[in-house]
Amino acid sequence: MPTQALAAHITQDTTLPISTRFTLLLLVITFPAAADEIPGDVARKAATIRDQAMAGTVAYDLVESLTMEVGHRSSGSPGDAKAVAWALENLEALGFQNVRAESVEVAHWERGELDVRVTAPNEHKLVALSLGGSPGTRGNRLSANVVRVESLNELRALSARDLRGNIAYIDHRVERHKTGRGYGPASRIRSCAHYIAAERGAVATVIRSAGTSTHRFAHTGGMLNNKRPATIPGIALANADADLLTYQIESGERVQLSIQSTATNLPRTTSANVIGEVPGRGPLADEIVLLVGHLDSWDVGTGAYDDGAGVAIVTAAAKLILDSGEAPRRTIRVVLFANEEFGLDGAEQYTQRYARSIDKHIVGMEADFGAGRVWRFSSNVSEDALDLVDEIHALLEPIGLERGNNRASGGADLTYLRKAGMPVLGMSQDGTYYFDYHHTEDDTLDKIDINDLNQNVASYVTAAYVAANIERDFGRIPVNPAPFRGCSAAED
Amino acid sequence: MPTQALAAHITQDTTLPISTRFTLLLLVITFPAAADEIPGDVARKAATIRDQAMAGTVAYDLVESLTMEVGHRSSGSPGDAKAVAWALENLEALGFQNVRAESVEVAHWERGELDVRVTAPNEHKLVALSLGGSPGTRGNRLSANVVRVESLNELRALSARDLRGNIAYIDHRVERHKTGRGYGPASRIRSCAHYIAAERGAVATVIRSAGTSTHRFAHTGGMLNNKRPATIPGIALANADADLLTYQIESGERVQLSIQSTATNLPRTTSANVIGEVPGRGPLADEIVLLVGHLDSWDVGTGAYDDGAGVAIVTAAAKLILDSGEAPRRTIRVVLFANEEFGLDGAEQYTQRYARSIDKHIVGMEADFGAGRVWRFSSNVSEDALDLVDEIHALLEPIGLERGNNRASGGADLTYLRKAGMPVLGMSQDGTYYFDYHHTEDDTLDKIDINDLNQNVASYVTAAYVAANIERDFGRIPVNPAPFRGCSAAED
Repeated sequence: MPTQALAAHITQDTTLPISTRFTLLLLVITFPAAADEIPGDVARKAATIRDQAMAGTVAYDLVESLTMEVGHRSSGSPGDAKAVAWALENLEALGFQNVRAESVEVAHWERGELDVRVTAPNEHKLVALSLGGSPGTRGNRLSANVVRVESLNELRALSARDLRGNIAYIDHRVERHKTGRGYGPASRIRSCAHYIAAERGAVATVIRSAGTSTHRFAHTGGMLNNKRPATIPGIALANADADLLTYQIESGERVQLSIQSTATNLPRTTSANVIGEVPGRGPLADEIVLLVGHLDSWDVGTGAYDDGAGVAIVTAAAKLILDSGEAPRRTIRVVLFANEEFGLDGAEQYTQRYARSIDKHIVGMEADFGAGRVWRFSSNVSEDALDLVDEIHALLEPIGLERGNNRASGGADLTYLRKAGMPVLGMSQDGTYYFDYHHTEDDTLDKIDINDLNQNVASYVTAAYVAANIERDFGRIPVNPAPFRGCSAAED
Repeated sequence: MPTQALAAHITQDTTLPISTRFTLLLLVITFPAAADEIPGDVARKAATIRDQAMAGTVAYDLVESLTMEVGHRSSGSPGDAKAVAWALENLEALGFQNVRAESVEVAHWERGELDVRVTAPNEHKLVALSLGGSPGTRGNRLSANVVRVESLNELRALSARDLRGNIAYIDHRVERHKTGRGYGPASRIRSCAHYIAAERGAVATVIRSAGTSTHRFAHTGGMLNNKRPATIPGIALANADADLLTYQIESGERVQLSIQSTATNLPRTTSANVIGEVPGRGPLADEIVLLVGHLDSWDVGTGAYDDGAGVAIVTAAAKLILDSGEAPRRTIRVVLFANEEFGLDGAEQYTQRYARSIDKHIVGMEADFGAGRVWRFSSNVSEDALDLVDEIHALLEPIGLERGNNRASGGADLTYLRKAGMPVLGMSQDGTYYFDYHHTEDDTLDKIDINDLNQNVASYVTAAYVAANIERDFGRIPVNPAPFRGCSAAED
């Protein structure tokens, strides 16, 4: 365990006897070995840029422009094309090099119109959204009885006799948590419920939204089961409307829902990853420090939190390095991915395109969790690079970051590169309120606090500056070619 | 100034010299004249019922049933008829006497469908609601340039040359305040902007919503100018969408809006005020203590705050008196008015119907401000009844109520009766968040806190119990036949 991590450990571990604590503390004082991995001039310059970022960046202007001018931009839509043009124009204008759009084949789905009503025992129109990939009702109104469960396992326990011809309603409430940990189980229900229900003859799936909004917004999102298309409509209800549906069911009377939807899965089409670089200099110039966000958004809000903020954070971070007066040793590459939301197409095709140079990607960082303050810095790097991570953390601690573990996922768009062995650094944004806005009509610019946004930029730029300017790297992590999970109980 | 108010004054006024405070305090202690107006047994019983209400009432069950079973209920709609049936059934079931529906002719408007888009300089679909009474666009799409102002006076300062053929956009932001005082100016804009704009040749009016929601909800509401119908469409934007429109305008480019609406004003139709009573006993039995709310709601939420809560509060308060073991001396009359939202038809026609017995209405109390805790008790009574009001306040102080002034309005549905001389008591609910939900899709049951709701019932029942069981009354207040305000600058 490196000295500095040990020091952090001491501060936290008050169960040690006083004398031991004192001795260890003395050790730290006696051997302040914190500057082994990052040369002093790099650390000082990183701290300067960090503080500059805290004082102000271009991030807010970028997310304002993207949301107010382009607006929403789901893959394959006119907004998507407009977003690609916006990104090219802005990366050029900011002075990045090698600015380019790299073509990506993307999934294409259109929401159309949706009308969902309880028709018995009491008539109510519900606030609901079709889930991405949901088929429509082919011009008809689909009416059926509702069968309620609270989990995928309860759904799996039903037979075709229970579900055939009925609508399965999965009434799972998402936990609110700073880490966003409630989203995993909820998004799994969104991805898998339709598949399990369809196997048992259900005609549609309705879920309580995979979100925490206490306002009347449904949360959309993909209902892809490992890229397999959905065969029955999938609908998410706002929390208040799920309450209303549950109330009808608890009355003990037969509850009927009626759904009309013109949602449509269209042929795959073309979008693009947009890339801009701050070229490196010298022998390490062909190595890449990767900063990513995604350019697409769902089609209901203006994609401010998801992921306009991320686009703005990584671009503003790279811009600070671009303007720092000296080219970095490694190349900083900003990639704004196509279609994260509905199949990770941009990330997957980037990984294929750059298959032969993945080992030149020495580390990746993604911003795709809104604009809450970063509170924790974690990693997924080679064990022998943990000293370096600790030293980067020492630069981040003054702006409020705790030290996390070495199991960071790095974000959805880095999944393929991470599984191919690229180390990642994780900036944990405060997710307490993120899932109030995520994938809703309410994801708009007014939710972003400019100071929190700049603290994000400061966090990203500090780590990126160090990674790009030191001799050593983060090693590689184990290659993991395992496919994404399926929907069986064993994989839950 | 009565003794008790003086005592309250002393407690607050710490600027008095210690010696004076001491002397006055002694006076209070020496002459505790607080029980002049309310006999001890009535005060004790009122306190008992108050505490019982704090511990639990039927209010939450009522508003749950109304919102979950009936749902929204705008005047003339199927929901309105269902609400009348619901109220009759529930007042009967609770054991009220003389339960009846009294026919009311009501305004009838249907929202239809609305599509509002910015078409230049950047295309955006906006979250918007038609205002009540807005005509539609007759099957067409209305496209025009936008002229922005921030107030009615700025609008009045424009000429026909500025506005003819254009859309007037009034971008006024509502102040958030515990008293709800920001709503007055905002609702005046909603009522008058279309009238002033139409006089100058504008083809439609768009307003920033008359509400404080920081989420993406437009706030509907009547656009009646003293019952005159609107001649041009009126649209309210969600705050985030007003931000978006303003951003386009501030870009300096020509901004074009496109509106398609099927809103329709229909012939007046029939609804009903629903009434239930707790009959009085003895010589004062023909005198009425009036407790009111309104049964109608707008058609976008389920009308939990506006005014399901009010219906529940006054009904639950009367129910506690009904169950108190002894008939009150005066009759408690609960009136659930028809169509408060779109012209006060129920209140106006009640006042006409009972014109000859208005002086038997010794006092009125309305609940129509959500379900926030009551924090202030005010009045509008004869000057010589202020001692009595102070004594009622002494019973309310333990549950958190300050003493307000003697200029209470009593609420919209009591306007006609108050102008005819009926005194009113005012329970000020905390309105800090009321206008986040008011007239939006987000006005649903989950916003109501059961303990706050019961504190409301406790406040109303305490005052109502005293008013119904004492010998004296609140006198009369000046008759004021002045019409409602028009839309001229002089009346601002």
